[in-house]
Amino acid sequence: MTQVTLAKVGGKIIDDPQALEAFLKQFAALKGPKVLVHGGGKLATKISEAMQLKVNMVDGRRITDAPTLDVVTMVYSGKINTSIVAKLQAFGCNALGFSGSDGQVIEAVKRPVHTIDYGFVGDVVTVHGETLKLLLNNNITPVFCALTADNDGQLLNTNADTIAAELAIGLSQDFETALYYCFEKKGVLRDINDDQSTITHITPNDFETLQQEGIVSEGMLPKLNNCFHAVKHNVSKVCLGQPDMLFNPNYKFTTITQ
Amino acid sequence: MTQVTLAKVGGKIIDDPQALEAFLKQFAALKGPKVLVHGGGKLATKISEAMQLKVNMVDGRRITDAPTLDVVTMVYSGKINTSIVAKLQAFGCNALGFSGSDGQVIEAVKRPVHTIDYGFVGDVVTVHGETLKLLLNNNITPVFCALTADNDGQLLNTNADTIAAELAIGLSQDFETALYYCFEKKGVLRDINDDQSTITHITPNDFETLQQEGIVSEGMLPKLNNCFHAVKHNVSKVCLGQPDMLFNPNYKFTTITQ
Repeated sequence: MTQVTLAKVGGKIIDDPQALEAFLKQFAALKGPKVLVHGGGKLATKISEAMQLKVNMVDGRRITDAPTLDVVTMVYSGKINTSIVAKLQAFGCNALGFSGSDGQVIEAVKRPVHTIDYGFVGDVVTVHGETLKLLLNNNITPVFCALTADNDGQLLNTNADTIAAELAIGLSQDFETALYYCFEKKGVLRDINDDQSTITHITPNDFETLQQEGIVSEGMLPKLNNCFHAVKHNVSKVCLGQPDMLFNPNYKFTTITQ
Repeated sequence: MTQVTLAKVGGKIIDDPQALEAFLKQFAALKGPKVLVHGGGKLATKISEAMQLKVNMVDGRRITDAPTLDVVTMVYSGKINTSIVAKLQAFGCNALGFSGSDGQVIEAVKRPVHTIDYGFVGDVVTVHGETLKLLLNNNITPVFCALTADNDGQLLNTNADTIAAELAIGLSQDFETALYYCFEKKGVLRDINDDQSTITHITPNDFETLQQEGIVSEGMLPKLNNCFHAVKHNVSKVCLGQPDMLFNPNYKFTTITQ
């Protein structure tokens, strides 16, 4: 089975033009079929403020009303995705941007309202891999931003970690898929204040223990749940750490397997 | 040779949500391989104003400084392109949005400064049809907005009529291509005040005569120059008129051939 690398980069790297450019240069040079998923960063908040729109966050999550949806659509799909694709092309990687319902890849629904109404926020139903397979087999690199759409064409703000996990699961029908969550930490740390305390390998059993020991903190929990969801559904491995883990064979990071 | 329909819709239809939705519903149902190119409409001006940016127009053309480029990138590629693709998908057409340098389709350069510095404005150098051919042969419909990028990944605001003509020329290597410029008039009119005076067929010789007679006015001239550029470079035919020309076999419009 052909191997595919799926990398997800978060908002912090998006907010740092030099770090982003350095990452994209190395990502462009990475051999083999690959997919990039990127978060949004702080630009959506800046643009909202410039347009005098109220930014409404609950527990660190953006409430997406109609004007906010317009802003995140413009920023994630317009400014960020288009710029990343153009940079990758300049570095010799034939990238192609995806968002919303491009190429019928991601099927999503608006999140049902329980205690909190998140507004135009999407939950991924499933991934259809045909278009991705076609592109990857033709040396084209799909680049996804954090937007989906429902069956009526309603755009939906959607968590980038979730999109990355679901894409990896969808791709695993046709490829041996490795998913890399790139963020500012060197992986899952045994001691959050000690950068050298990376736990190099976590299985589902270890995850139980780490939660009981209180080592996996609140912020890390949804990310790790995405990771285990992915390995449970045939993603070969999921890795967490700084972007260097993709390029430097001696770099220490966290790998998650079944 | 397989036939491809390439339709370009201008800003006026983009600015009218009901007209746009009606057009997209009919376009989605159009048989055979097809490509859509869309203009920008007035939203970029509205967003610029909401962000207190100065809009600078010379002879009806937008001067694109760096903040303006950010706005047109957000609006054309983000809001408009993403929304059109999601709507086409809802109508059963497997659309895929393109902008900038997506898929290595459009090679462009920043327009050299002569008397006017248009800023980050692109001129198309050439079109590489490989990605389009791959998608069209797999029943995927590319949707282009009016943005390109140069070889360094610099995004460039680019005339949508020109993009449509160059894409049609690029496609003509592999397909029999018909290019439809959809706008508010019923085609090239002999009398601009008489909607029934459509000239149904124009050849290069006729074009000379029409210019000498003063029938082709200033606004129409660049559009017709794009048309004749296209037919000169192997595009089978170029049509001008209201969107109905694509869907209604009895509709009268202007066709341009060699």
